[in-house]
Amino acid sequence: MFNIEVMRHSCAHVMAAAISELWPQAKFGVGPAIETGFYYDVLFPEPINLEELGNIERVMRKIKRGRKRFIRRDLPIDEAFQFFSERGQTFKVELIKLLRERGSTAVAEETGDSHVSSDEDVGLNEVSIYEVDHFVDLCRGPHVEFSNQVGFFKLHRLAGAYWRGNEHNPQLQRIYGLCYETEEALNAEVERLEQVKLRDHRRIGKDLDIFHLSPEIGAGLPLWLPNGTIIRDELEHLAKEVERRAGYQRVSTPHITNEALYYQSGHLPYYKEDMYAPIKIEERNYYLRPMNCPHHHHIYLSRPKSYRDLPVKLAEYGQVYRYESSGALSGIMRTRGFCQNDAHIYCRMDQAKDEFKAVMSMHAAYYKLFDIQEFYMRLSLPDLTKLDKYVDEPEKWLKALRIIQDAMQETGLPYVEAKGEAAFYGPKVDFIIKSAIGTENAISTNQLDFLATERFNLTYIGEDGSEHPVYVIHRAPLGSHERFVAFLIEHYAGKFPIWLAPTQLMIIPISEKHEAYAGALLDRIVAVPVANGSLGIRAAIDRSSERMQKKVRSATLRQIPIVLIVGDSEENAQTVSVRMRDGTDFGQVETGAFINLLKMTIESRDDAVLRKSLAS
Amino acid sequence: MFNIEVMRHSCAHVMAAAISELWPQAKFGVGPAIETGFYYDVLFPEPINLEELGNIERVMRKIKRGRKRFIRRDLPIDEAFQFFSERGQTFKVELIKLLRERGSTAVAEETGDSHVSSDEDVGLNEVSIYEVDHFVDLCRGPHVEFSNQVGFFKLHRLAGAYWRGNEHNPQLQRIYGLCYETEEALNAEVERLEQVKLRDHRRIGKDLDIFHLSPEIGAGLPLWLPNGTIIRDELEHLAKEVERRAGYQRVSTPHITNEALYYQSGHLPYYKEDMYAPIKIEERNYYLRPMNCPHHHHIYLSRPKSYRDLPVKLAEYGQVYRYESSGALSGIMRTRGFCQNDAHIYCRMDQAKDEFKAVMSMHAAYYKLFDIQEFYMRLSLPDLTKLDKYVDEPEKWLKALRIIQDAMQETGLPYVEAKGEAAFYGPKVDFIIKSAIGTENAISTNQLDFLATERFNLTYIGEDGSEHPVYVIHRAPLGSHERFVAFLIEHYAGKFPIWLAPTQLMIIPISEKHEAYAGALLDRIVAVPVANGSLGIRAAIDRSSERMQKKVRSATLRQIPIVLIVGDSEENAQTVSVRMRDGTDFGQVETGAFINLLKMTIESRDDAVLRKSLAS
Repeated sequence: MFNIEVMRHSCAHVMAAAISELWPQAKFGVGPAIETGFYYDVLFPEPINLEELGNIERVMRKIKRGRKRFIRRDLPIDEAFQFFSERGQTFKVELIKLLRERGSTAVAEETGDSHVSSDEDVGLNEVSIYEVDHFVDLCRGPHVEFSNQVGFFKLHRLAGAYWRGNEHNPQLQRIYGLCYETEEALNAEVERLEQVKLRDHRRIGKDLDIFHLSPEIGAGLPLWLPNGTIIRDELEHLAKEVERRAGYQRVSTPHITNEALYYQSGHLPYYKEDMYAPIKIEERNYYLRPMNCPHHHHIYLSRPKSYRDLPVKLAEYGQVYRYESSGALSGIMRTRGFCQNDAHIYCRMDQAKDEFKAVMSMHAAYYKLFDIQEFYMRLSLPDLTKLDKYVDEPEKWLKALRIIQDAMQETGLPYVEAKGEAAFYGPKVDFIIKSAIGTENAISTNQLDFLATERFNLTYIGEDGSEHPVYVIHRAPLGSHERFVAFLIEHYAGKFPIWLAPTQLMIIPISEKHEAYAGALLDRIVAVPVANGSLGIRAAIDRSSERMQKKVRSATLRQIPIVLIVGDSEENAQTVSVRMRDGTDFGQVETGAFINLLKMTIESRDDAVLRKSLAS
Repeated sequence: MFNIEVMRHSCAHVMAAAISELWPQAKFGVGPAIETGFYYDVLFPEPINLEELGNIERVMRKIKRGRKRFIRRDLPIDEAFQFFSERGQTFKVELIKLLRERGSTAVAEETGDSHVSSDEDVGLNEVSIYEVDHFVDLCRGPHVEFSNQVGFFKLHRLAGAYWRGNEHNPQLQRIYGLCYETEEALNAEVERLEQVKLRDHRRIGKDLDIFHLSPEIGAGLPLWLPNGTIIRDELEHLAKEVERRAGYQRVSTPHITNEALYYQSGHLPYYKEDMYAPIKIEERNYYLRPMNCPHHHHIYLSRPKSYRDLPVKLAEYGQVYRYESSGALSGIMRTRGFCQNDAHIYCRMDQAKDEFKAVMSMHAAYYKLFDIQEFYMRLSLPDLTKLDKYVDEPEKWLKALRIIQDAMQETGLPYVEAKGEAAFYGPKVDFIIKSAIGTENAISTNQLDFLATERFNLTYIGEDGSEHPVYVIHRAPLGSHERFVAFLIEHYAGKFPIWLAPTQLMIIPISEKHEAYAGALLDRIVAVPVANGSLGIRAAIDRSSERMQKKVRSATLRQIPIVLIVGDSEENAQTVSVRMRDGTDFGQVETGAFINLLKMTIESRDDAVLRKSLAS
């Protein structure tokens, strides 16, 4: 078996061979291997459409079956120039010119195709070419030996791409192919891509009335519809509960602020390009805040603190605004304003490690609750040889780093280290979570901050009666409402667990005469107190004139987790017929028992409570 | 008995007589009656200080006892001029000149003293003067007959005041006096003023760590400390509960918005002076929003609505920003940003009256809960003779007005009508509430809006299949967090009911050996689920080394409603000794029974539940 990257790159050549068989006049740009396969940029005599990809695949399969050999030849560069000129391959000719003048690395950087690159950075005298099934390409290789070794492939996407990424150059068509060693791996990726499309948070967000974007309100400024607001509120209840148990105190701070604060914090000028333009009020500049920390620091400062008061943990779902260009915006995944599950922990140095560990454990507990099975931490390290560039006192930096590393090791959660990526103000740990279909999201950043202490004079009076600096831990395990809900939509494909579902159950009377029973049932259900911070069970009756089966389908389409069907039999027996979103039919259940079970399910935030009990 | 205003004005003369006895060189400005008494602006040979008020009062009492007659004389204006000139009363001389040139009404308007005014608006030829106890003043009267008829008075405030309100004129000293018909009424007002001072929300807000203002954050932008955030959150829980029962849906919308929205709504240009300067993002102007309505309208528009969908009730604790000059700011009573208990009800015309009634009843229910015993509504009416100035279609205006008037009459709540004060977009109803010490606050404005319908094309599809306009009710019964909490601080004097108190109970172990029992008790208490949307009971242990009595005092100073004292006796009997903030000692109560009672008290938001049960 060859290296997968070699297989993918070879597969790109096989595709090019197929294309030149179908369109002998086609001109080729670059065709590198990428993460899930390969692409090739091609100028067709006439632009092709998606349907042609099947034809190309068919010819590719023929070439693959034909067991064609990959033949390498090394040519003097002028000979290569003449070879591709004669064949009208103008883009290859251009590449050869560049290679002759500027060397391969510069060209690779510019075109994104590492296969034209070698290690030298000066002009070349000689290049290699590869031939497979009569198609000859300028290429460093390496390649597989025979065309039947290129693995399993599928062409799946057609896009436009300017030659050398420059919009003044001709536009080519870029054909993307998936390529894997086994058919199973290929099918898994095909399925995953299908799921990503189906689970697109913008599509589901619209279908389920979660959020709405309106040009009059502005790009990147979503309106949260009632259903989305329920999800936000439930997440916030959860965080409040978890944070209350962990000794946090909630605060509420303003979203605009005198510029003086940002000069104190250093956001001005260092973070200015991520901030919006200021608002002038009575000759002073006020900014939309990009971060909550300076406000929390001022709350810490509002009363002197003693060693007995620490740790102080200030939590806020804090609204912040950070500059994004309109091109970078995407649904609620990337917005111009967002509301962070933020908190700052002010502690003594001897408390820092345990507090940091507790924060990491809190992350893990959240992810377990959301059935996020894969996540890891990424510790950004400074370039230790240039530590003096990061801060005046490198020993403080190193001390903070050791505290974090010890904490990470002791929690036993998976982590990687990224060298040279640290911010100047201290080491940071990002949490990366994977959705049910494998999409990675950097959801939360944690820092151990010893610089804020100096800038804001954040101190406490120690047992010795003198002032000591505090350490500040920045943390936001659920990230922002905006990003986390976007993640959850994809993760659950809109099938939220019962505690999060905007409508938790739909009562369906079999006919009009059962509406009274349904109404009494609804009254009883919505009056049940639910002790998890939410306001009660969210239920409704479908009183439309549709047939029962259609009402069930409609509830399922709206991803309502539970349907209660009530007719003569249920009314007489004072029961409900319980049907789940996934089709599971639990049959008739005594009404009181069902309501109690539902309450317990919501309070424990665990659908299994209901399912297990009803299944047994 | 004379009219109280006459008594107060006469009392001002008695004070002036006393002052001229003590300081024969004193020069007098104006001295009108005001709402609670009177004032007089005086230029003393040397500025006096507060202590002198007692001396002045003493001489006033002597004059009062002396039963001096108020003597009126009418003089040709030139004679009066000469009279006051000879006595060096330069301010009176100036007034006489003005009266001669411009007439009395103009002078009264300028000086704020209606007692120099008559009904004519042209220059005068004659003026009246009044004498009492050798003090002669330029004055229209009328006055009491004898100095013993001036009522009961107390001088209570000394302030600076520029002559004729112009800072380029000499600065006089203004002495304020209270004056009432009975000693009881006077004492009640003295007590009320004392209470206003004691209950100042800025003082209590600082003492109880409710909010904090910091110049680095900015004027009018309060930081809500943990205790204040608890109060905010409890109010919000309450509103969510009440609104859920009333069929509202919660939404969440952005605080900055493209200017396009405000041109659509008409806030630009009509409301521009109340808005902050715009922020430019990618060549478009974005504003901090002054109101939430346009955002809610766009949520209404996100899906077409049928007559069956109405009423739609969208609620949000919505953050808004309105321009205030720094001079107008006051604690959290008047801020630059605030968070409104806002909602908009979209309904059919045939639903409008009942919906408006329901909103008014909701107000009344809230005020009852907060023990606000006095409130009234103020209906702003247009000038009906100029109705075409308000709107193109006066009949729509009148129809909306009739709906509101009918609703107000049917609820039976007290209301007054204010003619000519209506806004152009429709009739509005303000709620004015009085605190426990009588301070009035306009807390909430309600409107029945038929114009937004046209501007935003807010319609529904009727039973007839065609489009109809909706009526929009704007409502915010609890006003903003900022203003309502400021009101509640004064209303309760910081002694919040148990459900609102930041710390609800303090456990006080009699000695160190009872700390284990106290700890177990705390764990048990904070784990109790509380089904009113809050997260549980807020309790703490005082583990300081102070003596028990001192700990009780400290809890009382912090306005903690309940203290639980635990010692040997309580530990052995598994009880708690319950002492209330007001000193009531309920003795030992079985622990489980107490906790259950506390839970019920918090859930019902009624301290009487606990008190009645423990007292019986």
